[in-house]
Amino acid sequence: METRRIDPVNCSVARALSVVGERWSLLIVREALDGARRFSEFQARLGIARNLLATRLDTLVAAGVLRRVPYQEPGDRQRHAYELTEQGLALRPTLVALLEWGDNYLADQQGPSVIVRHRSPDDDTSSCDEPVRVVLECAGGHGHLAPEDIYRAPGPGARFIDAP
Amino acid sequence: METRRIDPVNCSVARALSVVGERWSLLIVREALDGARRFSEFQARLGIARNLLATRLDTLVAAGVLRRVPYQEPGDRQRHAYELTEQGLALRPTLVALLEWGDNYLADQQGPSVIVRHRSPDDDTSSCDEPVRVVLECAGGHGHLAPEDIYRAPGPGARFIDAP
Repeated sequence: METRRIDPVNCSVARALSVVGERWSLLIVREALDGARRFSEFQARLGIARNLLATRLDTLVAAGVLRRVPYQEPGDRQRHAYELTEQGLALRPTLVALLEWGDNYLADQQGPSVIVRHRSPDDDTSSCDEPVRVVLECAGGHGHLAPEDIYRAPGPGARFIDAP
Repeated sequence: METRRIDPVNCSVARALSVVGERWSLLIVREALDGARRFSEFQARLGIARNLLATRLDTLVAAGVLRRVPYQEPGDRQRHAYELTEQGLALRPTLVALLEWGDNYLADQQGPSVIVRHRSPDDDTSSCDEPVRVVLECAGGHGHLAPEDIYRAPGPGARFIDAP
């Protein structure tokens, strides 16, 4: 049975994965979200080989996820640190979704090692600190959509192919 | 400066990526969510080499993301199709988050090729069809949290290491 389908290669998921669809890339972003900035920090936290880390950082900079910023310690030569761009910060929901999935299906018996919590504003005396999760919501204001409540429709950039 | 940190290897993100942190794995899950069931369907939709597809499907079955179900066409030998388990279906928020990120930063000028929409229930005359997005919400009922509103705290399974 042949039907007309949206070209799966032309999908933003495939494009997103061509940038971050590699285990180390998202772990580097996770560490950057957690405050890592220097090559040596990423290296020590992740235990990744230096040449592999250098390649992944270059790729993430070229893709616009990280930017290089110069820094210099007194008496030392100038080096570069890495900061998340707006595009990099926007990966947080993806990482929270992956964390939640890992917690639900792959955590130790003791429970998850990390819990993402709602930060209370500094000027707010009412502490929140409740765990954070990702939910699906539509622009029509319907929240907490179940997986079966959503479907994929062609967008303005859709290309079509014949496929089984 | 050395501080006590949550062991990054013991994180559910790392565990999740050890299962799906490979470009093809999430694209296979995407196609399964979109209705692909048979080896030949995954193969034709993704254009992936047969031996690589077979390996990835085996890994996803072993990890509990897909299950094999037998099927038989009249006059043909019995074959296996692949269905998402509950654990596999639970990857949908991750894929919606990746899609949204790809749409925002990597889409063609024409716009995204796929839009995830809110399905209207069959017995409901009020059509919705509005685009779906992922939002961060806390258990205390605060919704639409910004990236800077959340932080990572140790969970019950946290192990600690000394790291820069």
